[in-house]
Amino acid sequence: MRRTGLLAQLIQNLCCLPGVGPKTAQRMAFQLLQRDRQNAKNLAETLLKAVNEIGFCQSCRIFTEQAVCDICQDNSRDTSSICVVESSADVWVVEQAAVFKGHYFVLHGRLSPLDGIGPDELGLAQFEQRLAHGQIKELILATNSTVEGEATAFYIAELARKHQVKAYRIAHGVPMGGELEFIDSGTLAHALNGRQQI
Amino acid sequence: MRRTGLLAQLIQNLCCLPGVGPKTAQRMAFQLLQRDRQNAKNLAETLLKAVNEIGFCQSCRIFTEQAVCDICQDNSRDTSSICVVESSADVWVVEQAAVFKGHYFVLHGRLSPLDGIGPDELGLAQFEQRLAHGQIKELILATNSTVEGEATAFYIAELARKHQVKAYRIAHGVPMGGELEFIDSGTLAHALNGRQQI
Repeated sequence: MRRTGLLAQLIQNLCCLPGVGPKTAQRMAFQLLQRDRQNAKNLAETLLKAVNEIGFCQSCRIFTEQAVCDICQDNSRDTSSICVVESSADVWVVEQAAVFKGHYFVLHGRLSPLDGIGPDELGLAQFEQRLAHGQIKELILATNSTVEGEATAFYIAELARKHQVKAYRIAHGVPMGGELEFIDSGTLAHALNGRQQI
Repeated sequence: MRRTGLLAQLIQNLCCLPGVGPKTAQRMAFQLLQRDRQNAKNLAETLLKAVNEIGFCQSCRIFTEQAVCDICQDNSRDTSSICVVESSADVWVVEQAAVFKGHYFVLHGRLSPLDGIGPDELGLAQFEQRLAHGQIKELILATNSTVEGEATAFYIAELARKHQVKAYRIAHGVPMGGELEFIDSGTLAHALNGRQQI
């Protein structure tokens, strides 16, 4: 069959989802059309609304449909402590740990000169102004533990030092419940170097 | 973070896709919003259009946005030979094999009394009228080789016999390029019983 028409177009468009190839997209399209039209309609409408309405929080750059996100609006939170993360998903993860009660700053990426991602793309110019303002006392750098993530953390730590703000890196080591036998040597080296007196 | 708002709703709605759980849905939502807004918009619009416009072909019940599908409109195809399949996806697969030049009939399911799917749900009442009409000379039953698929094929074969139409079941046996060593015994039994003289 000539794969033309709306169905083929739908399958092709579903392929833009991460981890979805032509076969999965086809399965999705048939399932949506055959059994799930109401859900499919809801999904389409929500997606359209999300694309049009969700932007960045003016203050912390998290995804939100409001001008300022719920976290930044929450008066009970500590405005002097900022946790810097790479993505909005990371904010959710940190919030689930429920030990951090400050504000966030979302980079939406990491420094990667080869991909053309510099400090400006991560909103760091705007962030440096806030550091210069003097309201921020503590910076917790929770970027990922990759080469780019470490480089980004190091860059922001330098910014913090320039403006006399204390910067901390989250601890790297053996995960809770992890067995030493299965830990890679890089992590173990970090865990040994970062040992704390008990 | 309280998972409320448009983003949480989007993630929840993405979970209606087959094989997509909350984690995957979250990854999809962030990817679409972060890097792929234009594609996300296209997807939403196509999906909405597909849900509203795609229906069944009047003649063969394949998914199409037209009243009669391309295959049924194609005058070069043999109207006296009908291949019966379970889903629109199966039509695409049979078309790719490029040996069948007749028309199709899509059941959109299989007989499954426990799920309340009887002959009427599969459009077989309408199909029996066509059989009675006498234009169909040959029926190829290409339902899946499952218990329900076999039962459905058997039911349709009975209908065909009633109206003096020849019904054929597609051959089951060892797949091309398959090694005997790895073939299950059920398939091998089929292959031996269906042996053909060379």
